[in-house]
Amino acid sequence: MKRTKIKYALNATAPVEEIVIKGWVRSKRDSKGFSFLALNDGSCLGTIQVIVDHTPEIEAALARTGTGASVAVTGELVESPGKGQKWEVRGRTLEVLGEADQETFPLQKKRHSDEFLRSIAHLRPRTNKYGAMFRMRSELAQAVHKFFADKDFFYIHTPIITGSDCEGAGEMFRVTTLEQGSKAGPEEDFFGQPSALTVSGQLSAEMFALSLGDCYTFGPTFRAENSNTPRHVAEFWMIEPEMAFADLSDDMDLGEEMIKYLVSHMLDNCAEDVDLFANWVDKTLMSTLETILKDPFERLPYTEAINILKKTKKKFEYPVEWGIDLQTEHERFLCEEKFKKPVYVYDYPKTIKPFYMRLNDDDKTVAAMDCLVPRIGEIIGGSQREERMDVLTARMDETGLNREDYWWYLESRKFGTAPHAGFGMGFERMLMLVTGVSNIRDVMPFPRTPKSLDF
Amino acid sequence: MKRTKIKYALNATAPVEEIVIKGWVRSKRDSKGFSFLALNDGSCLGTIQVIVDHTPEIEAALARTGTGASVAVTGELVESPGKGQKWEVRGRTLEVLGEADQETFPLQKKRHSDEFLRSIAHLRPRTNKYGAMFRMRSELAQAVHKFFADKDFFYIHTPIITGSDCEGAGEMFRVTTLEQGSKAGPEEDFFGQPSALTVSGQLSAEMFALSLGDCYTFGPTFRAENSNTPRHVAEFWMIEPEMAFADLSDDMDLGEEMIKYLVSHMLDNCAEDVDLFANWVDKTLMSTLETILKDPFERLPYTEAINILKKTKKKFEYPVEWGIDLQTEHERFLCEEKFKKPVYVYDYPKTIKPFYMRLNDDDKTVAAMDCLVPRIGEIIGGSQREERMDVLTARMDETGLNREDYWWYLESRKFGTAPHAGFGMGFERMLMLVTGVSNIRDVMPFPRTPKSLDF
Repeated sequence: MKRTKIKYALNATAPVEEIVIKGWVRSKRDSKGFSFLALNDGSCLGTIQVIVDHTPEIEAALARTGTGASVAVTGELVESPGKGQKWEVRGRTLEVLGEADQETFPLQKKRHSDEFLRSIAHLRPRTNKYGAMFRMRSELAQAVHKFFADKDFFYIHTPIITGSDCEGAGEMFRVTTLEQGSKAGPEEDFFGQPSALTVSGQLSAEMFALSLGDCYTFGPTFRAENSNTPRHVAEFWMIEPEMAFADLSDDMDLGEEMIKYLVSHMLDNCAEDVDLFANWVDKTLMSTLETILKDPFERLPYTEAINILKKTKKKFEYPVEWGIDLQTEHERFLCEEKFKKPVYVYDYPKTIKPFYMRLNDDDKTVAAMDCLVPRIGEIIGGSQREERMDVLTARMDETGLNREDYWWYLESRKFGTAPHAGFGMGFERMLMLVTGVSNIRDVMPFPRTPKSLDF
Repeated sequence: MKRTKIKYALNATAPVEEIVIKGWVRSKRDSKGFSFLALNDGSCLGTIQVIVDHTPEIEAALARTGTGASVAVTGELVESPGKGQKWEVRGRTLEVLGEADQETFPLQKKRHSDEFLRSIAHLRPRTNKYGAMFRMRSELAQAVHKFFADKDFFYIHTPIITGSDCEGAGEMFRVTTLEQGSKAGPEEDFFGQPSALTVSGQLSAEMFALSLGDCYTFGPTFRAENSNTPRHVAEFWMIEPEMAFADLSDDMDLGEEMIKYLVSHMLDNCAEDVDLFANWVDKTLMSTLETILKDPFERLPYTEAINILKKTKKKFEYPVEWGIDLQTEHERFLCEEKFKKPVYVYDYPKTIKPFYMRLNDDDKTVAAMDCLVPRIGEIIGGSQREERMDVLTARMDETGLNREDYWWYLESRKFGTAPHAGFGMGFERMLMLVTGVSNIRDVMPFPRTPKSLDF
């Protein structure tokens, strides 16, 4: 007989005479003549209560059953006379599928630290918190795809292994089939040239925006930065929409609509799991999310942002001057203290931004924007792209990039160029926003950080 | 005014007095006093016909307009008196957004070879065939997510950079931040140990199946195989479902349901684009897809498959003996000639399969299955996983794997192990199946192959 997922058993509308439940034991309580098991199968946060009478067969099975064991129960789903649950299972049979040694099973019924749970990342999804986290991660990813599908954006798989460096920055992982230490040159390597893990799919996505129209990527992205902070990992997932015939204002509209859609989707579809985080992880979570939904985001030119930061009495670690890149402390001040809601800062100095951002008429700033949200800081960074060939090549020369390396990118400006704009959103940052979790390592199945490659 | 995507203009239900269309010129035809433009914006296969009168402004714009140029047109959407289209646009203004030099623009109105178009992969989505391909690729990816979401499977992002080797085989790309040729050891590398690009997310996904229940991965996967065939690329996308409390028969059920769902979804949602491939690429496409939908897939034990292959009069390049791995010629014979429909071959010799597949009671075969489809060969490979600790560790010892390297994987069998099963489906192979395209390079935005890393 097919098992019923506990999520559906708990939401039953009528008793069920014959039901099969399979899952992991969260707790066992023995009474005179019968025992209670609380079972969870990961389909939802809740456990279902199973009551079994002490027949000889069941007593033998119970002796092998403890927290962490996996079992199969057949029985009847009935209304529970007890408090705290609507339905319970009167078990007829109990089969132990997999025991769990009670001396060594690390997830006994007590609260564990996030640090400890990271060291058993293969088991932490069996806890309430991380079960909720990874159900929410899944739902958030589904919501991203649904958002774009509903808006007729095409999903594009841009390459992971690349020969080009989107940001013009370093900090990339090399990919090779040569042995470490061998004297062979790049021409002998798999691709016949140096290759690396992508830091952004944007340049490739632009090719599709300029042919299929609106599109987006959603895939893994890499930074070989040797920084051990709660905000950095070497591998993370990024969402990069790219719109044809769009400018910076369209770009900010899309980002705002997307953030609001995702927050609203999660509140509607993951209420139980969101509650767990609101109750146990971040008491301000609900008010943060409500603020995001309620008002239009603030939209503030960089120059005004700098003036605000210079005028405030607040002391910052990094001094504020026109021309600096905003630091997290500045970003958080703007959205948490000054405006108390998400803030777009736009029109940044060209000197601190990459070559592909569209030069404004002032010749000093580019049509770039960052979206800052409470607690996280930057959650979106984007721009209108430079579609004018002469301006683009001049900027490439200025920043020391080799035109030949970007011949295909430049051809998109040579043949039927068009205004277009896009942004990148860190998927993990969005997940941190909707869960209130402050360490990026705790929103990923198996995080990759310097000197850490377990699992 | 907001542009209307051509897909919606072509499907209008009433005339529109004021409409804005933006797109790329597919062709221009001049007549006395007026000109015709066929515009495409990638939102669909079709072009919309625009008619503009020769006012001085428009003549100046027309002089700069040729195939490949991007333009913006404002005008009125009216019923077309001409044949071949229901609606056309009477243009009032024509603005050239980006010219295309007619001497050098490579996509003039004629048929180009796939080989040539691969060399301009950044422009090929502007052709009918590759526009259709990448719209279908997007829709197929959306359908994968929808299939699993509707079945309550959780989407898991398993790591791309890994320290372990799922197949126990070689052929992996190394990932490093050390300079090529440096004498530094792995302890000085970013992760403090050797690291590589994943060949499968399965082992990680199993951890989630054994906590959240049914789950799946859908992400990039890598093979550093130096083979230049129409079926191999170094980077491709794989879908890997993993089900808790499931056996090999459940696994085959899921695969069959999934393939039928995806085929059916594409026929329903991409009819126009599918037609292009049925008409121009593979005349047998429709009958292949109908066969897949119509009947239950054949399910055939490996031993019987070998007997069939030995008995047939057909000559194979690779000789057939019990114990061999099936070659593409064998697979295609079984599904194309013998059964004329998709075929599952299951219970393979353990000697040709990885350690994690569940040993059958005969001690000679494992609960593995491959799904073979016409034209493609293997599209799915999967198995019930070995959930018994003692059998699993014995198999690891047999195949020379180090238990310590897999400590976390083994712990899932130590604490509450449960029967589970899963498979991998090559996303590109599925896309080749529904388009009839025979070279994997032509179903990917920017394929990565030996000595080829353009774009």
